[in-house]
Amino acid sequence: MADDKKLVEQITSMDEDFAQWYTDICKKADLIDYSSVKGCMIIRPYGYAIWELIQKNLDTRFKELGHENVYMPMFIPESLLQKEKDHVAGFAPEVAWVTHGGSEKLTERMCVRPTSETLFCEHYANIIRSYRDLPKLYNQWCSVVRWEKTTRPFLRSREFLWQEGHTMHATAEEARAETVQMLNVYADFHEKDLAIPVIKGAKTPSDKFAGAEDTYAIEALMHDGKALQAGTSHYFGDGFAKAFDITYTDKENKVVHPFQTSWGVTTRMIGGIIMTHGDNNGLVLPPAVAPIQVVVIPVAAHKPGVIDAASALADRLKGDFRVKLDASDNSPGWKYSEYEMKGVPLRIEIGPRDIEAGQCVLVTRHNREKTIVKLDELEKAVAEKLQAVRDGLYEKALANRQRRTYDCETMDEIIKKLAEGGDGFVRAMWCGDPECEDKVKEVTGVGSRCIPLEQEKISDKCVCCGKPATQLVYWGKAY
Amino acid sequence: MADDKKLVEQITSMDEDFAQWYTDICKKADLIDYSSVKGCMIIRPYGYAIWELIQKNLDTRFKELGHENVYMPMFIPESLLQKEKDHVAGFAPEVAWVTHGGSEKLTERMCVRPTSETLFCEHYANIIRSYRDLPKLYNQWCSVVRWEKTTRPFLRSREFLWQEGHTMHATAEEARAETVQMLNVYADFHEKDLAIPVIKGAKTPSDKFAGAEDTYAIEALMHDGKALQAGTSHYFGDGFAKAFDITYTDKENKVVHPFQTSWGVTTRMIGGIIMTHGDNNGLVLPPAVAPIQVVVIPVAAHKPGVIDAASALADRLKGDFRVKLDASDNSPGWKYSEYEMKGVPLRIEIGPRDIEAGQCVLVTRHNREKTIVKLDELEKAVAEKLQAVRDGLYEKALANRQRRTYDCETMDEIIKKLAEGGDGFVRAMWCGDPECEDKVKEVTGVGSRCIPLEQEKISDKCVCCGKPATQLVYWGKAY
Repeated sequence: MADDKKLVEQITSMDEDFAQWYTDICKKADLIDYSSVKGCMIIRPYGYAIWELIQKNLDTRFKELGHENVYMPMFIPESLLQKEKDHVAGFAPEVAWVTHGGSEKLTERMCVRPTSETLFCEHYANIIRSYRDLPKLYNQWCSVVRWEKTTRPFLRSREFLWQEGHTMHATAEEARAETVQMLNVYADFHEKDLAIPVIKGAKTPSDKFAGAEDTYAIEALMHDGKALQAGTSHYFGDGFAKAFDITYTDKENKVVHPFQTSWGVTTRMIGGIIMTHGDNNGLVLPPAVAPIQVVVIPVAAHKPGVIDAASALADRLKGDFRVKLDASDNSPGWKYSEYEMKGVPLRIEIGPRDIEAGQCVLVTRHNREKTIVKLDELEKAVAEKLQAVRDGLYEKALANRQRRTYDCETMDEIIKKLAEGGDGFVRAMWCGDPECEDKVKEVTGVGSRCIPLEQEKISDKCVCCGKPATQLVYWGKAY
Repeated sequence: MADDKKLVEQITSMDEDFAQWYTDICKKADLIDYSSVKGCMIIRPYGYAIWELIQKNLDTRFKELGHENVYMPMFIPESLLQKEKDHVAGFAPEVAWVTHGGSEKLTERMCVRPTSETLFCEHYANIIRSYRDLPKLYNQWCSVVRWEKTTRPFLRSREFLWQEGHTMHATAEEARAETVQMLNVYADFHEKDLAIPVIKGAKTPSDKFAGAEDTYAIEALMHDGKALQAGTSHYFGDGFAKAFDITYTDKENKVVHPFQTSWGVTTRMIGGIIMTHGDNNGLVLPPAVAPIQVVVIPVAAHKPGVIDAASALADRLKGDFRVKLDASDNSPGWKYSEYEMKGVPLRIEIGPRDIEAGQCVLVTRHNREKTIVKLDELEKAVAEKLQAVRDGLYEKALANRQRRTYDCETMDEIIKKLAEGGDGFVRAMWCGDPECEDKVKEVTGVGSRCIPLEQEKISDKCVCCGKPATQLVYWGKAY
């Protein structure tokens, strides 16, 4: 049992040092590794398998809604980046610049894409002519680069993987509907598949995407009470279309500008999964994106028939679930620790006595609940348990958020409630003045996260200046 | 019918100008577009859908053989690139250099990966300790950059998409077996799924990958008689392992170096598909990678019941095939041209008389053969036709290669046969001297493509110097 203990000892307790606990999981669950490329991460097979499941799920959702995938160049010439003024101001300070090709200096330097609005716009200007060409519903899966000073695996790294949807519509209404539709897709994916409850809302003007008219986001609360912006969806109006001279001939034969959206989620979601569901034994994965949903572990494997029974059991489940049989020489205890660390939602133990009784033991990762199941009811039991894991994770995360959500009417109340309950979401009214927004952050430490789509009236005064206020805002400390 | 004609007129004839015909197809079949990023291409939805089908097929094959996907950083610090001497000499002249992050100059410049051996090696040095850690069978799907002077869509562009497998093995034998196994995977994929016959062979020493002990390739002959290197698989021995200090403790407790391979195919394969199967009506896609395998076109669509019948027919096929119903207002003739241009393997026409007779018309793209099929035999007929398209494409490509393959014993014979028959594969013996290799190219215009794994004895003398020669070499002009 010395080995078992060692494995668990390697993780810092989340209560002791949440940041170190997070990094420990990234490394010990074999999600990432570091390299000599500062600020970037290697996504290892187990981490990448999670990403592939996320991609597959979202890609199916996007395509069902009529989106098509494309691939744009990874470089953006400086002059192209500069075409939309707000956009370049937002991104130029944090891009990587390519200045040489081989031994030759480029006549114009190019950045590695931090996002691809400019490239999509240039292309749309080429291919959109008539109302018959609209809508254009494009998406791209790729890596992007932003030259961050402080980096953390998945949460903030110089290079990350993402998808970026870029769509063009005949009318503002249709583009606005797309913006909200994709926000809802992200929210649904987070809640149903990642078991992460989210708040859907609009960003305040100071927090909008560079060049957007409106930015929407889904905000999740992590186990430690800090907020994570988990996905964004932007409405651009016709601002980029004007800057890039994108026009089409409408049904009345007039030449007009189309309306645009973009929306994206990134490998950051993996960080969100870790910080929402993980515990002191390691990662806890929601079944929808778990590379291994069920691990089968033979107990007393040296006894005759045990490996065979475990193997038969794994084979039975393989058609319906992602299953791994671990028939290695390691002790069952070591294996339990190992697959708990890796967050496998469901473990099946089977030993000589189980075989005799025609049963096996199911153990759910998140609560270590054991259930003895008759072998002839196995498929049904496994499906139910995986659903129970998803539901249990969601309820636990929701309870954490509810416990850490504070309705406040004054800044003093914010300070007091955060001090008493720990970090979390503060819900408080805001008059709309950016100065108040800044002051709340300065005085209480929490910044505006979003103006939730589902509004409630907590009071009728701004939490900062006391003037009349009609907007409920979620405030928090953010990753 | 004016419209129909216009569409077809837009392509240059392949007999008139093969290069222009190729570019025309890339553009007119909506595969790519250009942008202000010189030497790079936009892969449009239809082109990207082909790539996604290629990816899915290969990814499944790789995973079935135990490979796992990972993601490495896209940057390589200059010092890391320089660790293996042959490798840096091969790639440094053609990389894009990042010198600035935001407004700050980097202390060490980094290149955008032209290939990732160096990053994989650094990582392997971190994670391989014991023989139990071997083999490591990793693959990566990503984009890479090589600063080419002359570029053509898919065939040679500054950025392209690819997969790069990187594996580490305990023994040289095992690594060699992997190298050949992956070459065979590529060959099988090309022959069975892309319907492109290939020659499997080894590259001559002058043509090896920078840092490899042996490079294997599959070589295909395009319609115009030029060769296309369609995939490569490299055996590295322990050269990189030594340069990167990758060691493991073997079963006898000795610290030794592992043995390495890498292998890759790229979006270039799409170029190969175009130039192998395309014709003067446009693209011709092998069914395995056709985004639309079957297009259903209603004839006399204004007549009652026609659209409904076509729609019902498309719905019936949707479970088994990738089907599109085109019920738009365009004329049937316009649609025929459009989907011929896009290379859709099978067209189904259905009009009032067909409905009455309980039948429809199947037309195969590559030979325009029409078959009348009873509706109750539709699924079977469609499956058979798609197989017939694949077989027909393969046979046509093989016949082209056979017609254009010339066995030669002297350089005069090479010149004569190429002049008579047009460009193609020359099969001739080689003594192994690089000077002879160069001279053959200089005098006859064809370079060595590969030393085929299946050797035959055409003569016993080198085609160049006349000294004894035991190696049969395929020679050709290459893309």
